[in-house]
Amino acid sequence: MYTHETRVRVRYAETDQMGQMYYGRYAELFEVGRVEALRSIGFPYKRIEENGLLLPVRDLSIRYHRPVRYDDEVTVRTSITSMPAARIHFRYELRDASDALLTEGETTLVFVDSRTKRPCAAPLDLVAALGPYFD
Amino acid sequence: MYTHETRVRVRYAETDQMGQMYYGRYAELFEVGRVEALRSIGFPYKRIEENGLLLPVRDLSIRYHRPVRYDDEVTVRTSITSMPAARIHFRYELRDASDALLTEGETTLVFVDSRTKRPCAAPLDLVAALGPYFD
Amino acid sequence: MYTHETRVRVRYAETDQMGQMYYGRYAELFEVGRVEALRSIGFPYKRIEENGLLLPVRDLSIRYHRPVRYDDEVTVRTSITSMPAARIHFRYELRDASDALLTEGETTLVFVDSRTKRPCAAPLDLVAALGPYFD
Amino acid sequence: MYTHETRVRVRYAETDQMGQMYYGRYAELFEVGRVEALRSIGFPYKRIEENGLLLPVRDLSIRYHRPVRYDDEVTVRTSITSMPAARIHFRYELRDASDALLTEGETTLVFVDSRTKRPCAAPLDLVAALGPYFD
Repeated sequence: MYTHETRVRVRYAETDQMGQMYYGRYAELFEVGRVEALRSIGFPYKRIEENGLLLPVRDLSIRYHRPVRYDDEVTVRTSITSMPAARIHFRYELRDASDALLTEGETTLVFVDSRTKRPCAAPLDLVAALGPYFD
Repeated sequence: MYTHETRVRVRYAETDQMGQMYYGRYAELFEVGRVEALRSIGFPYKRIEENGLLLPVRDLSIRYHRPVRYDDEVTVRTSITSMPAARIHFRYELRDASDALLTEGETTLVFVDSRTKRPCAAPLDLVAALGPYFD
Repeated sequence: MYTHETRVRVRYAETDQMGQMYYGRYAELFEVGRVEALRSIGFPYKRIEENGLLLPVRDLSIRYHRPVRYDDEVTVRTSITSMPAARIHFRYELRDASDALLTEGETTLVFVDSRTKRPCAAPLDLVAALGPYFD
Repeated sequence: MYTHETRVRVRYAETDQMGQMYYGRYAELFEVGRVEALRSIGFPYKRIEENGLLLPVRDLSIRYHRPVRYDDEVTVRTSITSMPAARIHFRYELRDASDALLTEGETTLVFVDSRTKRPCAAPLDLVAALGPYFD
């Protein structure tokens, strides 16, 4: 398993009138966690697209345990839980400053050839870079 | 089971550079479906809040079958699948003009007293209004 | 001058913890107004893009007179105030059910060739369609 | 004049199908710039609200000079251009890594008492903290 942490400050824009983060905006924090996890092993998502791949999301699930609030500095702990093949699976935890679990989530993304729009395999160098974490 | 349909036009703001709806924005279409389903049985969500209740989302899941694109007129089919008690459960389908299934989703929401911030029971008149659909 | 009206229901997603519409989200209501105004004269924005044009926004201004709130049904009154040439200018008013002015805004958009990414002239048939409103 | 800089990485969520930042999302980068500018002189916006004030936006203007793109690390240069009284005025510049000007913006915010919802004066300690920059 490969795990990476990044921190995100909650914006006013992300709150709703309930005084907490709007339930749809958590997906953006997961995006940040996922992108920074990929960057940390040498695969900025931007470069993945430049190399002719897209990574649309196939499924998403979120459990909201405790509210995330305005101006909170949230730790996004992102894990790649298995070797990517045609798909890549991410698990997310949002934690507050005292490491309390606020939110859990999961996504599956699919590798797609941006020209043909058809599914394809994970890039070999991504597989190679993740290899050491799954031995 | 109670089912309600409403239609939503996809905004440019909702697209991303992949040329489809950003995966986090689907939650807004589910919100629209849920709110219009509640309105259709006489419970505008605004009034629920005015009566001292909040309905935070407890969990969300989405399966993205086919991309939703800019300017599509999407039908949001929202179902309340069981009688609400401490929680209320919604199921969503997004369908295009030819009734093809684009997206499926589910949410669980919790009734919360807005003063005490503690869980509470579904309003009796909401339970009564839904009664006929679950006999 | 060409003026068109459309109505939009404010989403919970669009509120912030101040209990009103987040100031950045008004741009989406203007987008809806602009797109529906163009559609009403026979130019769905989607088709403009399919014909090889893009219409990026060059400038935006907003004056927030009164708060727009959750579940409000807002009328977006959109005006094209002069004949488009290299640019097209829109003016917006958001009004509540009693026609009170909530918000005013303006945008300038530029016609761009989507292949060359260079500015270009407004399509002749758009100019022709708007002609009668500026005599 | 008081000027502060902060850096923000552009999210995929913030792009649209034109392949650049959606014009309404720039307001969020300005929010980040404004909030970090206030924090840097000892006034986290969260504390302003806890002290019974709100700061709704009165007007916004943006000029989009060059597109802001996915994954760009943008510098938000925020300036408070005059001593706040009943209002506080901010000016923003977004600049890329080579200091090229991408976007300019301005906002005026109003001090409001959160109980009475009426305009009020800027907090004295905020005025005092900004004093040295306007001598």
